[in-house]
Amino acid sequence: MELSKRVLSMQHSPIRRFNVFAFEAEKKGKRVYHLNIGQPDVETPPCFMEAIRNFDKKVIAYSESGGETVLQDAIINYFKGYDMDFERKNILITNGGSEALNMIFVSLLNPGDEVLIAEPFYTNYHTFVTQSAGKVVPLTTKAEEGYDFAKSDLIEAAITPKTKAICCISPGNPTGRVLSLEDMKLIGDIAKKHDLWIIADEVYREFAYDNRDATSFGMFPEYADRVVIVDSVSKRFSACGARVGCVVSKNQELMDAIMKLAQGRLCCPTLDQIGAAALYNLDKSYYDEVKAEYEGRRDVVYEELMKIPGVVCQKPGGAFYMTAKLPVESVEDFLIFLLKEFDDKGETVMFAPAEGFYGTPGLGKDEMRIAYVLNKEDMRRGVELIRLGLERYNAR
Amino acid sequence: MELSKRVLSMQHSPIRRFNVFAFEAEKKGKRVYHLNIGQPDVETPPCFMEAIRNFDKKVIAYSESGGETVLQDAIINYFKGYDMDFERKNILITNGGSEALNMIFVSLLNPGDEVLIAEPFYTNYHTFVTQSAGKVVPLTTKAEEGYDFAKSDLIEAAITPKTKAICCISPGNPTGRVLSLEDMKLIGDIAKKHDLWIIADEVYREFAYDNRDATSFGMFPEYADRVVIVDSVSKRFSACGARVGCVVSKNQELMDAIMKLAQGRLCCPTLDQIGAAALYNLDKSYYDEVKAEYEGRRDVVYEELMKIPGVVCQKPGGAFYMTAKLPVESVEDFLIFLLKEFDDKGETVMFAPAEGFYGTPGLGKDEMRIAYVLNKEDMRRGVELIRLGLERYNAR
Repeated sequence: MELSKRVLSMQHSPIRRFNVFAFEAEKKGKRVYHLNIGQPDVETPPCFMEAIRNFDKKVIAYSESGGETVLQDAIINYFKGYDMDFERKNILITNGGSEALNMIFVSLLNPGDEVLIAEPFYTNYHTFVTQSAGKVVPLTTKAEEGYDFAKSDLIEAAITPKTKAICCISPGNPTGRVLSLEDMKLIGDIAKKHDLWIIADEVYREFAYDNRDATSFGMFPEYADRVVIVDSVSKRFSACGARVGCVVSKNQELMDAIMKLAQGRLCCPTLDQIGAAALYNLDKSYYDEVKAEYEGRRDVVYEELMKIPGVVCQKPGGAFYMTAKLPVESVEDFLIFLLKEFDDKGETVMFAPAEGFYGTPGLGKDEMRIAYVLNKEDMRRGVELIRLGLERYNAR
Repeated sequence: MELSKRVLSMQHSPIRRFNVFAFEAEKKGKRVYHLNIGQPDVETPPCFMEAIRNFDKKVIAYSESGGETVLQDAIINYFKGYDMDFERKNILITNGGSEALNMIFVSLLNPGDEVLIAEPFYTNYHTFVTQSAGKVVPLTTKAEEGYDFAKSDLIEAAITPKTKAICCISPGNPTGRVLSLEDMKLIGDIAKKHDLWIIADEVYREFAYDNRDATSFGMFPEYADRVVIVDSVSKRFSACGARVGCVVSKNQELMDAIMKLAQGRLCCPTLDQIGAAALYNLDKSYYDEVKAEYEGRRDVVYEELMKIPGVVCQKPGGAFYMTAKLPVESVEDFLIFLLKEFDDKGETVMFAPAEGFYGTPGLGKDEMRIAYVLNKEDMRRGVELIRLGLERYNAR
């Protein structure tokens, strides 16, 4: 009656591991600024709930395995806005971007197959790849270089006969790194040369700042047969709890394979899909508004971070995360100090230690990830608390 | 750029394979009685939509990975109604019973591990077990014996050193077979003797007719450490499109393992969970009402089936399916005849050929599954059409 080796080799979420300390702090009356999770405070556009409230069928019936056509069509229309042409057969609706990633890895990986992912990376990639008995091969990037990974030597040195795919998230979690079209071309050409799949996690697509355009691997016809895009309403529309995402690809063999998995789990929730269709149909001006808000927050966080002596961080171009090196040996130890011992006027702060985002053991011990999911004033105070905490911590 | 061997070895849904013929028939103006899918016409209790319409938070935020506590508590309360005591840590909310099964198999199976399942079985078991690189070992049952599988010799003969679990669905899809408490004890004792997990798919729990009580493997304290129950709102509350299910187990090691997978996909949709909580809180009288409706349908279907010479079928005790042997060589060929060539007053009928429900090649070619998901009158007419079609088919 043993469990599978696969599940035993997995970790619990390293992001949630410190929640117990935060919970204790809050129980004692401390206010904790939560910069540790990717749950934005931005309001979900009301059209989501409106569309759901107007649902008037008597039976909440199964949806199609590939998704509600009204949602597929809204997504097609959304991509048209970026001059990308997809058809319904190219779009399969999933339970969030998470299920999309899971299905992609199951469809691509044989046991031992390798996937290149720039580290630090979103920890759940490890969960999904392990579930498929594959292996994450990390491409190590550096705070000093703004976590850049679009470099031929870095990528090609990691390719082996077992390499099946390169997985790129842009704008990136946890670093905020954004790939330019030139970066994508460099990566695409390497993928073509070595016959690799390109898994493009683009759920933060619009959150690209400093006048950057929204980009996508779907903009390159020359890679269309090897590109599979992951999309989601979670971040773009601040609808994380809707759990609506999709797989997008013009490789029909892959889409047919993923359809088998989709049929196995029958379908995605009907109501959330109807709400999500309304979100994808929102006017593009919505993105400008949300982008301006996040860009403002990033500027505040960066400004405050730069006030801390010894911090290493390049201003990131997108998403709503920032990874930075702190002048401490162990960020985890510092975080526990912040939650257990420190307060300033009854307040303290929580971030995610970056060690859990690295695949290479030993890396990231002195790095943290901040999610700028609170309003500007709270973000400023949160980073100030990190600065004050560091002064106290290093003076001990 | 190949796909994984795993996904290539999977099939598309054998139930949906004939949809194209039905679609063509309907395009030509034929009315098709769809007895082929498990989508009931029964109204979803309005409390589901009411609870969702009343949701008034501004942000559709992530739920807890293990599920909304309001739903966990409603499920705990539901099980209390059957004298089963669970705590929140024993209940993890999933995207339908489908995800529950998927997570259980990933958590239990190493490559090559075997799971005993009585055949004919719900085809998606095969998808989930294959996804985990495990193997379904079918326990072959017979129409003549009412598809009984609670037999020591049948089960023990199939056990090998690779056997990890026995998976029991009761009341059963596709046969309608219901396990009595004695049957469960027999299976439980074998599992204990051979140290196997018991995966109990009990999503049709209340649909047990002829004065049978609702039963559960959760009613046996002596097997509590090896039992994992799959539950769902889909069938019980006719809410298939809500995609809310759960894993229920007192084996904490297993629940901790499944929590890793749950954290990987973050959470289930928030709104559907809130609606599902209202469903689980319904008064027990609701089950009596729905049960009476399905029991009446079963009686009608059975009565009409018995009018067909050569049909082999024992009256099933539960769920809303019936598998029967027809006096033809190939039920698939007969189904295509019904959809392409036959009609009576412009009407024809569709069922699911049972071959796809068998794991042993060659079995089930002369069997069909009927889902009694339409009202009595339509069910009567549907089975009549099978009879009339058979007369015409066998007279050719």
